[in-house]
Amino acid sequence: MDFGPARNSTLHTVDRWRKDGIYPLFPVITEAATTRARIRQQRSMHPGDAHTGDHPVSVFGSADYLGLARHPEVVEGAVEAARRFGTGTYAIQAVGGYTELHEALEEATAAWFGLPSALLFPTGMQANLGVLDSLAGPRDLVFTDRFNHQSIAMGVRLSGAGAHVFGHNDPEHLEKLLQQTLREGHTGRRLIMVDGLFSADGDIAPLVQIADLAERYNALLVVDEAHSAGALGPHGRGAAELLGVLDRVDVLTGTFSKAFASTGGFACAGPDIVHLFRHTANTYLLSLGLPPASVGAALAALTVLAREGTERRRRLDDNAQALRAGLREAGIGTAGSAAHVVVVPVGTMDRTARVARRLAERGLLVGPLLHPVVPAGGGRLRLGVCAEHTTDDLTHAVHLISAVLADEGGQR
Amino acid sequence: MDFGPARNSTLHTVDRWRKDGIYPLFPVITEAATTRARIRQQRSMHPGDAHTGDHPVSVFGSADYLGLARHPEVVEGAVEAARRFGTGTYAIQAVGGYTELHEALEEATAAWFGLPSALLFPTGMQANLGVLDSLAGPRDLVFTDRFNHQSIAMGVRLSGAGAHVFGHNDPEHLEKLLQQTLREGHTGRRLIMVDGLFSADGDIAPLVQIADLAERYNALLVVDEAHSAGALGPHGRGAAELLGVLDRVDVLTGTFSKAFASTGGFACAGPDIVHLFRHTANTYLLSLGLPPASVGAALAALTVLAREGTERRRRLDDNAQALRAGLREAGIGTAGSAAHVVVVPVGTMDRTARVARRLAERGLLVGPLLHPVVPAGGGRLRLGVCAEHTTDDLTHAVHLISAVLADEGGQR
Repeated sequence: MDFGPARNSTLHTVDRWRKDGIYPLFPVITEAATTRARIRQQRSMHPGDAHTGDHPVSVFGSADYLGLARHPEVVEGAVEAARRFGTGTYAIQAVGGYTELHEALEEATAAWFGLPSALLFPTGMQANLGVLDSLAGPRDLVFTDRFNHQSIAMGVRLSGAGAHVFGHNDPEHLEKLLQQTLREGHTGRRLIMVDGLFSADGDIAPLVQIADLAERYNALLVVDEAHSAGALGPHGRGAAELLGVLDRVDVLTGTFSKAFASTGGFACAGPDIVHLFRHTANTYLLSLGLPPASVGAALAALTVLAREGTERRRRLDDNAQALRAGLREAGIGTAGSAAHVVVVPVGTMDRTARVARRLAERGLLVGPLLHPVVPAGGGRLRLGVCAEHTTDDLTHAVHLISAVLADEGGQR
Repeated sequence: MDFGPARNSTLHTVDRWRKDGIYPLFPVITEAATTRARIRQQRSMHPGDAHTGDHPVSVFGSADYLGLARHPEVVEGAVEAARRFGTGTYAIQAVGGYTELHEALEEATAAWFGLPSALLFPTGMQANLGVLDSLAGPRDLVFTDRFNHQSIAMGVRLSGAGAHVFGHNDPEHLEKLLQQTLREGHTGRRLIMVDGLFSADGDIAPLVQIADLAERYNALLVVDEAHSAGALGPHGRGAAELLGVLDRVDVLTGTFSKAFASTGGFACAGPDIVHLFRHTANTYLLSLGLPPASVGAALAALTVLAREGTERRRRLDDNAQALRAGLREAGIGTAGSAAHVVVVPVGTMDRTARVARRLAERGLLVGPLLHPVVPAGGGRLRLGVCAEHTTDDLTHAVHLISAVLADEGGQR
């Protein structure tokens, strides 16, 4: 079938990887511990394509940054919730799908961030879609970093608002766009939305400058802390806390599916804005709430982190610094990586696929970042550091990346 | 804050309900069994608003149609999966979030429907968004029933395709629109998408006529079986199976969060289309996969239903017929309700809110359907029948609805 040029080209690339034996996607996890797994690599996802047998890998492709996904208290939180409230909620939250556990997790989430109110979305993606669709409309403008997570661009499209895309972490460009729209006499609402920690780049948004601009130009500031909530800042409140501007953020979105060891999304804001989302955001109102097990796991994770968060964040930061230093010493660049998401530029899509495939074959599971998530030619490996990685894990990862890149003629 | 006329008006209505003591939304579930729960009704969702104490209700607002949400095998399926693979997946499915359980549920889902391939989305909403965004683009046209679930209109907006909305269950109108676009020389792809069972109306799409039109006008046919999968058709394959046209459906979407007693969405189709979704659908690729507990619950539910599905569907159908007959005998209209979703028209938004609130106070939990889910003035109660409802449950529900409507001066 003809699916249009962009999609045809993606499918053509996938097909070439299959023929060349370098399809790097959808390894099947057959066993999993926090930083260890067994995987079966696939020739491709075509039915009938033979698998290889499974083999052990060291996991560096995970967003379980604080290492809680198999913590006994977190697992028991999930188990108890499923036993108490069943395996789903079976009604939208407004009419019978909102349990005491959901209420408790809303309160615990708001309390975690020290913000007035919170509500839970079924996924982080639906949180971003809902926030944008509720706060912005065709008369409004959204100013968005060009490397923001794709869910933000999708939310802008859904909302019908005008999109103004500024250069990555470039507040000067943002200010030019804000000035330009003022000169053009725009009178609707203005929103600025950025990722706190960029998941495909590993760098942190210049939130001080951006908060200044939001104030100066009377724009609402929305920060997606998906990869930073729990993991960055003195209390694990994210990039905005780390940079001292959390009280200047109007809406904070995020997910329980990374440092908080569960699944699902959330938005925190003042009571009026949360009230708005609760009664008008389609991705909240018209999609089922989180299953009890996910709510129970997230609640338990917040409890564990209230006790062990500081220590786990310290280990995460130590590991991230050690990994970046180890790669640097091995002559491997990590672009702008500044925290626990460490990015290794590789080059073309085929080269990135091949390197990721070879790494997995040799025992290291990392995420290849491919077009259209990153620009064509900007293929990279994405390493998610975990507080539970040992020094040996880090050394092993650097060694393997170094060896596989050398086989490929070095880093590009 | 000024959120624009439509949103301001919704918030104003919610505020009036709060003042009048008829806010019917977000009852807090404090205990739950299959057809029984305890709820705390809320004055509103404003922080600081006092709750009432909790009290028992009979549950008629659930989509756990086959009564499996607390089935011991299903709960154990969730528990075992969480113990084995942890409380989340921590990477997108393409790069480390795809476990053996996800693979098994894809296969079991495709096998359930007798279709070649399937893939899992984090929510049913994201399944519809992803299918439309991947299959349609700005050069394409989507023909959509005006009472389709809102996620379908959102998917069309995301895709950039042209939307042609036809009258509810009106194949003649659909054909006129198809002819018109042919006359206008449109050359892109055409998609027809409908709900199998309409969740706010209770009626079933005329899929034979629609499949004929899809063939005649060379359009892809997509059917959302969210409320019908598992529950309708000789093998529980949904409305398309019931009407004998499953082999003429190009893409079937649905959710595990209703008859399949878990959470999450899916799409079934031929291998080429599933391959396309897997490598190009943003709502699939860029959002985490289902947590292991949800996958385990859905797998267990499919196993239970392979054994007990026919019997459970028979009881569901008997109960649905008995409820409709009981309401009819009590002089209460159920509009076009034809299956296990039974709709009772009530009238204005305020009246619908008040009736739902009073019913909950007197021990019956039903879903009020309010604007913008239904047209203004078209407020209604939505009753979800369950295979586990007893004759007493049904009699009790009819009695309470009848009494509360009488207090309000009868049905409008």
